[in-house]
Amino acid sequence: MHAGKKYTFFEFIVWTRRDIYRLTILAIIPTVLYHYCNFTFLSISWVPVALLGTAVSFIISFKNNASYARLWEARQIYGAIINSSRAFGVMVRDYLAVHDKKTDIQTIFYRHFAWLTALRFQLREPRAWENSNDPRNIEYARLYRVSEKIDSLEDSLAGYLSANELKYILSKKNKATQLMALQSAHINKLVAEGILSELQLQSLQNAITSFYDNQGKAERIKNFPYPRHFSSIATIMLNLFVFLVPYGLLNEFNKLGNGTLIEGYSIWLNIPFAILLTWVFNSLDIVGESSTNPFEGSANDVPITNISRTIEIDMRDMLDESDLPSALTPENFILM
Amino acid sequence: MHAGKKYTFFEFIVWTRRDIYRLTILAIIPTVLYHYCNFTFLSISWVPVALLGTAVSFIISFKNNASYARLWEARQIYGAIINSSRAFGVMVRDYLAVHDKKTDIQTIFYRHFAWLTALRFQLREPRAWENSNDPRNIEYARLYRVSEKIDSLEDSLAGYLSANELKYILSKKNKATQLMALQSAHINKLVAEGILSELQLQSLQNAITSFYDNQGKAERIKNFPYPRHFSSIATIMLNLFVFLVPYGLLNEFNKLGNGTLIEGYSIWLNIPFAILLTWVFNSLDIVGESSTNPFEGSANDVPITNISRTIEIDMRDMLDESDLPSALTPENFILM
Amino acid sequence: MHAGKKYTFFEFIVWTRRDIYRLTILAIIPTVLYHYCNFTFLSISWVPVALLGTAVSFIISFKNNASYARLWEARQIYGAIINSSRAFGVMVRDYLAVHDKKTDIQTIFYRHFAWLTALRFQLREPRAWENSNDPRNIEYARLYRVSEKIDSLEDSLAGYLSANELKYILSKKNKATQLMALQSAHINKLVAEGILSELQLQSLQNAITSFYDNQGKAERIKNFPYPRHFSSIATIMLNLFVFLVPYGLLNEFNKLGNGTLIEGYSIWLNIPFAILLTWVFNSLDIVGESSTNPFEGSANDVPITNISRTIEIDMRDMLDESDLPSALTPENFILM
Amino acid sequence: MHAGKKYTFFEFIVWTRRDIYRLTILAIIPTVLYHYCNFTFLSISWVPVALLGTAVSFIISFKNNASYARLWEARQIYGAIINSSRAFGVMVRDYLAVHDKKTDIQTIFYRHFAWLTALRFQLREPRAWENSNDPRNIEYARLYRVSEKIDSLEDSLAGYLSANELKYILSKKNKATQLMALQSAHINKLVAEGILSELQLQSLQNAITSFYDNQGKAERIKNFPYPRHFSSIATIMLNLFVFLVPYGLLNEFNKLGNGTLIEGYSIWLNIPFAILLTWVFNSLDIVGESSTNPFEGSANDVPITNISRTIEIDMRDMLDESDLPSALTPENFILM
Amino acid sequence: MHAGKKYTFFEFIVWTRRDIYRLTILAIIPTVLYHYCNFTFLSISWVPVALLGTAVSFIISFKNNASYARLWEARQIYGAIINSSRAFGVMVRDYLAVHDKKTDIQTIFYRHFAWLTALRFQLREPRAWENSNDPRNIEYARLYRVSEKIDSLEDSLAGYLSANELKYILSKKNKATQLMALQSAHINKLVAEGILSELQLQSLQNAITSFYDNQGKAERIKNFPYPRHFSSIATIMLNLFVFLVPYGLLNEFNKLGNGTLIEGYSIWLNIPFAILLTWVFNSLDIVGESSTNPFEGSANDVPITNISRTIEIDMRDMLDESDLPSALTPENFILM
Repeated sequence: MHAGKKYTFFEFIVWTRRDIYRLTILAIIPTVLYHYCNFTFLSISWVPVALLGTAVSFIISFKNNASYARLWEARQIYGAIINSSRAFGVMVRDYLAVHDKKTDIQTIFYRHFAWLTALRFQLREPRAWENSNDPRNIEYARLYRVSEKIDSLEDSLAGYLSANELKYILSKKNKATQLMALQSAHINKLVAEGILSELQLQSLQNAITSFYDNQGKAERIKNFPYPRHFSSIATIMLNLFVFLVPYGLLNEFNKLGNGTLIEGYSIWLNIPFAILLTWVFNSLDIVGESSTNPFEGSANDVPITNISRTIEIDMRDMLDESDLPSALTPENFILM
Repeated sequence: MHAGKKYTFFEFIVWTRRDIYRLTILAIIPTVLYHYCNFTFLSISWVPVALLGTAVSFIISFKNNASYARLWEARQIYGAIINSSRAFGVMVRDYLAVHDKKTDIQTIFYRHFAWLTALRFQLREPRAWENSNDPRNIEYARLYRVSEKIDSLEDSLAGYLSANELKYILSKKNKATQLMALQSAHINKLVAEGILSELQLQSLQNAITSFYDNQGKAERIKNFPYPRHFSSIATIMLNLFVFLVPYGLLNEFNKLGNGTLIEGYSIWLNIPFAILLTWVFNSLDIVGESSTNPFEGSANDVPITNISRTIEIDMRDMLDESDLPSALTPENFILM
Repeated sequence: MHAGKKYTFFEFIVWTRRDIYRLTILAIIPTVLYHYCNFTFLSISWVPVALLGTAVSFIISFKNNASYARLWEARQIYGAIINSSRAFGVMVRDYLAVHDKKTDIQTIFYRHFAWLTALRFQLREPRAWENSNDPRNIEYARLYRVSEKIDSLEDSLAGYLSANELKYILSKKNKATQLMALQSAHINKLVAEGILSELQLQSLQNAITSFYDNQGKAERIKNFPYPRHFSSIATIMLNLFVFLVPYGLLNEFNKLGNGTLIEGYSIWLNIPFAILLTWVFNSLDIVGESSTNPFEGSANDVPITNISRTIEIDMRDMLDESDLPSALTPENFILM
Repeated sequence: MHAGKKYTFFEFIVWTRRDIYRLTILAIIPTVLYHYCNFTFLSISWVPVALLGTAVSFIISFKNNASYARLWEARQIYGAIINSSRAFGVMVRDYLAVHDKKTDIQTIFYRHFAWLTALRFQLREPRAWENSNDPRNIEYARLYRVSEKIDSLEDSLAGYLSANELKYILSKKNKATQLMALQSAHINKLVAEGILSELQLQSLQNAITSFYDNQGKAERIKNFPYPRHFSSIATIMLNLFVFLVPYGLLNEFNKLGNGTLIEGYSIWLNIPFAILLTWVFNSLDIVGESSTNPFEGSANDVPITNISRTIEIDMRDMLDESDLPSALTPENFILM
Repeated sequence: MHAGKKYTFFEFIVWTRRDIYRLTILAIIPTVLYHYCNFTFLSISWVPVALLGTAVSFIISFKNNASYARLWEARQIYGAIINSSRAFGVMVRDYLAVHDKKTDIQTIFYRHFAWLTALRFQLREPRAWENSNDPRNIEYARLYRVSEKIDSLEDSLAGYLSANELKYILSKKNKATQLMALQSAHINKLVAEGILSELQLQSLQNAITSFYDNQGKAERIKNFPYPRHFSSIATIMLNLFVFLVPYGLLNEFNKLGNGTLIEGYSIWLNIPFAILLTWVFNSLDIVGESSTNPFEGSANDVPITNISRTIEIDMRDMLDESDLPSALTPENFILM
């Protein structure tokens, strides 16, 4: 996520400059043909363009609503992981502290960090519908590091798991799922040994259920994109609209100069105004599109690396560890 | 669901080509009558058409909202089934592992897969209001396989159930419901035998309650369509609008050519523009309609066959089985 | 609910024909006065009408949103009753099966059907704000049977309750509430007798709490209408709009014929177009109004008789009863 | 709440007549100045007025959405209180019945009625932002009785509490909170005495938690108004719009009469049409405003007195009491 | 929050006067150039401005929806903290009262107040994207006190914690999290000592889980702003619109005076009307922006200092303490 005050107008211009080139060409063509070739019949009526504009507004606004909802839900899910992790942490610590089971506490805590790590690696794997390969975003991505794309999962897990467990987990399909299953097995072993009571088991098992819930919800957002038919019709309509706008404005700008200093030249104003209008709609669409996949490693992602670190700090602080890792900070205002 | 980047403009055109034929005819009629028969009075004012357009925008946008909500809720329900299945899996495995009840674990796990199978077969049965018989969709359906329409339920269940249970279940009205009831009976038997404790029973019974919840929610979306009176008025209004647009634009396009190269011919532009405009609204409606029944076996369904397989893989991986089935992959970008 | 493909255009016309008569008269008056009496000043500007139209669109769209939400919530509530009933069913069956308490199981199951019956009778009692007495709906209601308006509650309950309990319940104010209270008393008696454990009591009592929740939610929708001031202002605004539209279009249609075959006659087109436009808005409002009370016994109700029967079938199937009742089917596409 | 079919057009006119006077004056001023003083430059363009109208539509529609949501949530909260009260009732009755603790049952039931009473008195206390002192509402309030504004809290509680508890509670800040705390103390005492088990305590304590939840939610709606800055900007924008409309329509109505019977007089039509339009927007706003504080003792309140009585009837009916109070009925269609 | 009737029109003008200066300059420039320099070509067509206006309405309305939702959710979270605190309070009091553990009760209650205090201090720390440094708000902030910005955390906690615990907590990263962890440790110690039962532990641990939930939800709103790309595009579009409006209206106001007393001067009306229109849109945006960060110490914050005090009063009243602190009251209508 962007953790600063705002993206500047200039940053938007740079970010969307490829679109601006395209929109400029689309605006120049009819203006030149109208003026030099005298194809005045190109100045189609504004009426159908306006109606199309209404429909485009609806569909883009619909898409942005859905995008924002996906982003916000993604953040809620990770918020819920924070909350459940803290609650799980104090339960594990305090249920086991009475029996002085320091090693078990630490093993469970660190396996939890391993789960957080496996989950964030899974969530940042690429999908066909994501926008990381968009030239706009590749360029911008040079400004910040996405640790899940740089580090290896094995190295990242190694600090949290015993060698045996690490090997076991790396052999599994869904690593996060099986890490949480190890937590369940561990806790049930402690019940069998008489360290934990059945009621404590129930509370801890509920915590595990809630971790599975939140993992599954994040995977749902990851694996079920904004439906492709909704997305595609929006793109198609936007492109039709963007194509027609410069034709629809020709007449207005041709008339504008009549009787003024710029008579005969005012038609050229069609170009900047058509670009301005189409850029606004196009940018609205891009902004929406940028939030639709909140786990793709883009600048507008939910900062799951940072959140995972926060959880680790809070939980290790619960154990009064002395060498807490430092919190992640934004690079060029981008927090991952 | 479509698991690729997008539907192309061309795919949309092919998919909606029957509509385009219809819209073309509707656009040609008034244009020909106006031009050749000089029925210039056909060029009705744009004012009532624009007002109707506003109302149509509202109702289509309303319908698309509802459709999208139905699709998204359907995916949430199946997401919740994934999550509850994992949590149920570790509980059953770890509660029974202490007593070395491998057979019971496996029976319960495989009966769960049977429940998933029965449920997906039930959800993909046809309903009167669904769109699978739409020519658009029949054609498109050749690109992918819907296993619930090809395989038999009995064969699909046979791998998961004992012969006795299979026979019992096939005699029941709602097979998924009675399969879950068998799970309840099995677990209660284990309590009566002293294998499971009462508290463990409570946790497992809660899991069963949550499976019934999610089954019932999926059945609700299956059995309660987008209300037919809302759907019908949308169709009626859209058709009225689509009918009137070419009349409303006649005048604009007639005037367009005045004093230009195409004077006297510009009226013919009415046809492509009327088609374009009505196609946009019509396509928006079709896109919404395509998501309104997310369990009908269409290309935009929630991929419940794939999700059921994922659950099976994750749960069998929990048991460290060695011959895991492979995940389902999209055919022509369509994942079922 | 309508369980077919759609309401046809013709059905809509028939259903709204009284409105069409009214709209026709409203459209004829200004047209006749304009044409024959030369009251050309009646052709008011479209500007205030358009602004009013925007406001009307907002309020109708707002009302339809609320209506749809009420209908959908009503269906969710009954969906939740299905789910909780199944979960309650397996718990009662399996908790008591160990002790071979067949009679208690059956008594509790059948009392549950009695609760479903009492609830659906209560929900289908008339309220002042409902639309069953609307001539439109009285006429349409001949196409299907509403069993709660035909059968007596006493007869319907008699098959499910002992004579004593039946008499007791009929003496109570809120029969569904007190039936569920009998379930609670029965279960607590079984605990006192040592048949059920305290933990099982807790699970069953939770189920009773959830039945009270869903009963109360259904009663909330029944007893708290779409707020009358919101509803009344919508009606008033719609009627003002419908009154003004034919005046606002006079000028457009008068001009239309100029220089064409129908010069001097085109004013008469004002009548069909005004009817068309006002009919569209009026019908949108009626469609919304038709869902606002989802338990009134109308064709667009939630099918609670059918759902109650489904629950009975599923629960008796759990007991392996051999003479299951048949599912309810739609009459003329209407499922109650 | 209004429990009838609708507010009539006439009732709306009477209710908003002070607004109509104001709107009339605003419409007369520019018309008179235009006509008699020939200040034709007052006829400003409709363009800025229309744009302002769009913004006003947005903000009023936004406010009405929020208002409706507040009203509906308030009703949901009281619905949840009904549901939890019934569930709490059967638990208390059946858990204690085994031990024949009739007095405790009755004390707890009647203390619950006291809590309902204290809560409804607290919720109907006035707040600075409420509309009870609006002349519109003072006048209308003569049609119905608000018992919380007529009766004293002490008298109303006296029937439900022992003299000691009454005195204790009256000395407390938040009486409802401390009444529920007494319930908790009573139940814990019964556990200490061995009458109730720990598991029963857990269930009852959960019920108390849910009562605190619902009390707190109602207090949230009471104490946190629709944010004043949102409310104020809506009022300001509406007033600007209402002021400008009669100027914006001047030109339209001046032209209207040209060449007709009423040439030179048609300008006077500006007055009724401006009033009509501004009244519509103004009334929409008032309707929204009327629901924004659902516990203020207005005609559109959630009927909490009636609901509290319903709960009392249902719970006393559970105890098979013979002298049940009668349900509250609407006065002049208003149910409190 | 503003706890009065409304912000007056005058207060809005003062609050937004810097914007008005800017808008005035933007309106004067084209008017002067048009009139004195005869740059009549500046009077661009209203068509593109109107379309841009539609897009701006969408995006501002979208942002205000999100802002309002964030504010309302923030209030719901603190409402939930009230409710859970009361429920936690009676449980702690009544579970421990039987064992006459007055000191433990008081320690836990006061540590809870410490948690509330730490939480409100954390939530009122500044963030890069907040608006406290906006000149508008700095000025307004002189009207009320934000205790979290004046008092020190250490002093504020000192009254609630023992010296040891205070020192321990001040050494921690997330103080609220670790305070709640101390509650968990304390309660588990009481279980180990046999004072509390395992079931009571479960209930209290659930309460702690719910406090962590609500703390985490509040932190989510604090730390995850309205996404910067959505916010930035809204600002950019609003500024483009505000810039273009005075150009788009030039022609309308130039024509207005033709043939009237003010012929040749009516162009100057462009200035007030452009200011009026742009001020309305600009103010709508500012109103939304003012609620987007509900914990920033602004006049439109959720009043968390006041709510924390209310909880303290209610909980100390449960213990029948005699020297309750007084409730916080608004200063200049602002309640913090």
